[in-house]
Amino acid sequence: MTKVVIIGCGFGGIEAARSLAKSNVDVTLVDRTNHHLFQPLLYQVATAGLSAPSIAAPIRHILRKQIARGRLTVLMGEVVDIDVANRAVALDSGERLPYDELIVAAGATHSYFGHEADWAPHAPGLKTLADAFELRRRVLLAFERAECESDPAERAAWLSFAVVGGGPTGVEMAGTLAEIARHTLRGEYKRIDSRATRIVLVEGAPRVLGALPEDLSARAAQQLEKLGVQVLAGARVTGIDASGLDYDAGHGTQRLPARTVIWAAGVAASPLGRLLAERTGCTLDRAGRVIVEPDLSIAGHANIQVIGDLAAAKSYPTRGEPTPVPGVSPGAKQMGRWAAANLLRRRRGDATRRFRYIDYGSLATIGRHSAVAMVDLPLVGPVKFSGLPAWLFWLFIHLYFLIGFRNRFVVLMDWAWAYFSFERHARVVADAPRPAPPQT
Amino acid sequence: MTKVVIIGCGFGGIEAARSLAKSNVDVTLVDRTNHHLFQPLLYQVATAGLSAPSIAAPIRHILRKQIARGRLTVLMGEVVDIDVANRAVALDSGERLPYDELIVAAGATHSYFGHEADWAPHAPGLKTLADAFELRRRVLLAFERAECESDPAERAAWLSFAVVGGGPTGVEMAGTLAEIARHTLRGEYKRIDSRATRIVLVEGAPRVLGALPEDLSARAAQQLEKLGVQVLAGARVTGIDASGLDYDAGHGTQRLPARTVIWAAGVAASPLGRLLAERTGCTLDRAGRVIVEPDLSIAGHANIQVIGDLAAAKSYPTRGEPTPVPGVSPGAKQMGRWAAANLLRRRRGDATRRFRYIDYGSLATIGRHSAVAMVDLPLVGPVKFSGLPAWLFWLFIHLYFLIGFRNRFVVLMDWAWAYFSFERHARVVADAPRPAPPQT
Repeated sequence: MTKVVIIGCGFGGIEAARSLAKSNVDVTLVDRTNHHLFQPLLYQVATAGLSAPSIAAPIRHILRKQIARGRLTVLMGEVVDIDVANRAVALDSGERLPYDELIVAAGATHSYFGHEADWAPHAPGLKTLADAFELRRRVLLAFERAECESDPAERAAWLSFAVVGGGPTGVEMAGTLAEIARHTLRGEYKRIDSRATRIVLVEGAPRVLGALPEDLSARAAQQLEKLGVQVLAGARVTGIDASGLDYDAGHGTQRLPARTVIWAAGVAASPLGRLLAERTGCTLDRAGRVIVEPDLSIAGHANIQVIGDLAAAKSYPTRGEPTPVPGVSPGAKQMGRWAAANLLRRRRGDATRRFRYIDYGSLATIGRHSAVAMVDLPLVGPVKFSGLPAWLFWLFIHLYFLIGFRNRFVVLMDWAWAYFSFERHARVVADAPRPAPPQT
Repeated sequence: MTKVVIIGCGFGGIEAARSLAKSNVDVTLVDRTNHHLFQPLLYQVATAGLSAPSIAAPIRHILRKQIARGRLTVLMGEVVDIDVANRAVALDSGERLPYDELIVAAGATHSYFGHEADWAPHAPGLKTLADAFELRRRVLLAFERAECESDPAERAAWLSFAVVGGGPTGVEMAGTLAEIARHTLRGEYKRIDSRATRIVLVEGAPRVLGALPEDLSARAAQQLEKLGVQVLAGARVTGIDASGLDYDAGHGTQRLPARTVIWAAGVAASPLGRLLAERTGCTLDRAGRVIVEPDLSIAGHANIQVIGDLAAAKSYPTRGEPTPVPGVSPGAKQMGRWAAANLLRRRRGDATRRFRYIDYGSLATIGRHSAVAMVDLPLVGPVKFSGLPAWLFWLFIHLYFLIGFRNRFVVLMDWAWAYFSFERHARVVADAPRPAPPQT
């Protein structure tokens, strides 16, 4: 039986596994965590609106029917090598997984543009559940520190937040932080007024949400300002340390004091891209993504396909020029299904097909009642809308795609609660930093 | 205005703060975390049945009305000293909190009977949310490691769990582990049969749940065995390492191989007990608890009261001998209210009253449909029951006392879901241990 190994259990990997499990192949799925993460809502965990299990489901549980049918093995482990010559994936446990077909869907991590060592400790990003917990910890503890602080300047610094990167994640984080400061925490402190919190969104490009049309970008910026977020576009970050960041908006270096800096700017492909390049000679783009063939395989290695955020893939429409596939979850899902179909075609001796991405539109939420959307309707063409309708649309879409009925229901309850009470139920910091025991 | 400082925000501290906030005093509440923890359900977080925010609520949110009235300050911080002569509590932030009245409710931690350094790394306990996450991680990863293991002996070791301590926590943990192995994970692995899991409950005393009458203990042991837990009573643990534990059941040292060992045995008072002893000359008992006066104050320091798990307190009934107050949440709550009332009496110039604990009974759950209960009914006297009625009673009591309507509702939903589906929704390990990046 054909042995397929899939590396990574994000949107791409899980779709590929589901598609293949219907066929007569033997699939092994490897991931270094035990869960599939619904990343579009990860910022809600970071901002204490949702608890982790609401957006993370055990991979085994999602795929339990496929496992029970005997066609699928799920292994938790880290890939340490890909032996292309002998067709085997080496895991950190020492196990080698032989494969006839390999699908690499290892995703992306954040990039600090070469400043990993200096910036990462001061400006955590948001890719994994551990990241989300770290951000939640920093955000909630900043208000606690402000309450304990007697020096007004220090207090203001603890009440200053900078979000670097004006893409969807940065916009969501900044908008939600503003809501927390203005509504959720209001009246719960005695010494500080949480409404005095300063939230600055720093974006290097001239506008936020650069992937959307200009008018939607402008509307998003307006909605952010209305929520109390200061938008600093066209400002390139040149330094980050424990007490704030430096930026250059064209008038030389300026300083933005902020005890809490959140990184939502750069994305870099998984290090497995580099490993694949060394083992197969494939080319990487600037972000470390594998430049794949039109059918998602690697040049000269028809049995290795790369999908999701790790792939620099193009969409080949029936008419017109190929366009890059955006790094969003529908893209990864569609690639997962496409790779599975191409794999089966090739095993049958048929020709593979060039990938075609179906773009249903773009969507970004900002906060309560605030979102911008562009939906591509058949015949009608792109329709743009914003504000409450876009926010309701966003709510519906995200609930719909959240895996598992229970999660969907719980998340809806959490949101309904948060909506009417302004409360965020997950305001819990598990491990307070523990200083040395009493000096006695 | 009288300045009151309360240290610790467990059941005792929060009840004291609530009681005092009704009077004309100025209360400051200090805790090293930002949340109040409903500890009786902590084992559910450790066993992936509940998410952390379901049983932990932000202290500020619980007490927001008292804060809004201007009588209460909540500070997150660690107490580093108590300056009894100058009546001030020193925090790690450098702040000094002057007090007229001090209530110390710093609780307990686990004790390894002098083996902290050797045993703690191999057998984590269960007192904080961080502990619960660590246990969840170990339990879930043990099954993942078993699935990855090719050596049958190693596989069996990963599928062996030992729980040390047959009190309520140990019994709950062992029973729930058995449920997970027999039901939740069944059919989700390809290489292992999770039902082959071995779960051993090790107790040094001759029977589990020693605080309950003998017949209820025996019934609990029966119910455990029925769930698939092996009960090893009268077995004293003499060593714990990475691959299992040594015990002595009266026939010399024997070995119990188990890759996962959970510590539910010893409880030691917070180190603040020792600090208080040095500063006030008060006496500690063997577990490090402060031996308090009949009115819960410290001998010679009427303005310092110690409550909850940190206090070795006695209950003075209207008739008969005083009896020790058990270390359970109703005890801590009652002491919190009592300490607040005594404080106000003394400030008014009235005499304080000796503490009287009202015992409503004892209750321990074991697993699905399994629990034992003893309820003290007025006129009727103690009534014992077990099995399904006791389990339903346990469910009702725990939901009733869970703070905040929302949590109660969410927990009920989670339990209903778990009951009918056998699924546990929080089977998520946030931070998989990350080995070094690929050796390329």
